[in-house]
Amino acid sequence: MDETSTEQGVLSTEDCWAVLRSREFGRLAYVIEGAPSIAPINYVVDGDQLVFRTTDGTKLHNIIADPRVAFEVDEVDDADEVGVSVVVRGEAHVLSADEEYRIEQVGLRAWLGHDRPVLVAIRPAEVTGRRYQLRRPWRSMMRG
Amino acid sequence: MDETSTEQGVLSTEDCWAVLRSREFGRLAYVIEGAPSIAPINYVVDGDQLVFRTTDGTKLHNIIADPRVAFEVDEVDDADEVGVSVVVRGEAHVLSADEEYRIEQVGLRAWLGHDRPVLVAIRPAEVTGRRYQLRRPWRSMMRG
Repeated sequence: MDETSTEQGVLSTEDCWAVLRSREFGRLAYVIEGAPSIAPINYVVDGDQLVFRTTDGTKLHNIIADPRVAFEVDEVDDADEVGVSVVVRGEAHVLSADEEYRIEQVGLRAWLGHDRPVLVAIRPAEVTGRRYQLRRPWRSMMRG
Repeated sequence: MDETSTEQGVLSTEDCWAVLRSREFGRLAYVIEGAPSIAPINYVVDGDQLVFRTTDGTKLHNIIADPRVAFEVDEVDDADEVGVSVVVRGEAHVLSADEEYRIEQVGLRAWLGHDRPVLVAIRPAEVTGRRYQLRRPWRSMMRG
């Protein structure tokens, strides 16, 4: 976190990207027949895109039908009682074979077990982030 | 996790609720003008509902206009290389004053700083969960 973050807890775009680059696990939100859906994904930042693998037919079919997605990563530091959340809004598209080759170079890790042969990239239209002060009064009660 | 979970990593409904009750931080997905949105929330399980506070006008206005939501919690155990994710699909509604009184009894904690006077409940229509084996080959490489 650099010093450009405001006191109100709004992260600068640079801070948001630093958080995105430091993580490899987030949640993808998309819309199926008007209803929201959400799924955990492993991802990697490649330049100004987020890339993930999938074989999930429902997810993939939907992304092709309606590419609008939202993506979130967060981290909670219990010791400092601070939480950070970064949200990306944009469009997802399936990568072509030559793009896949390029992505292999950046080392997207196959976390989630099964083969996930289709690579999908999220092109962010908006990246926002917030830092939260976590107030948990029962903590001071427990200490006292 | 009880023994009813299948080898394929699908959690039983009971396991899903156990995960939901053990956490207090998740992500809410909702739809604004056809596009997905996602936000971190603190929540508490009250019976068969999930309850959270908000003052976010956009989120609240949208939930009233279109109550369909998806909600996700997850946990990653780096030591065991296992991840668990639970997704709730359902509808959200603003609690009335007498319902609020009841919720105060269950102790929803005001994590996120500012006052959040409006209580919203998610009534689940579907609760699903999966356990993932996290395969991270660079780990064994680092060990080796």
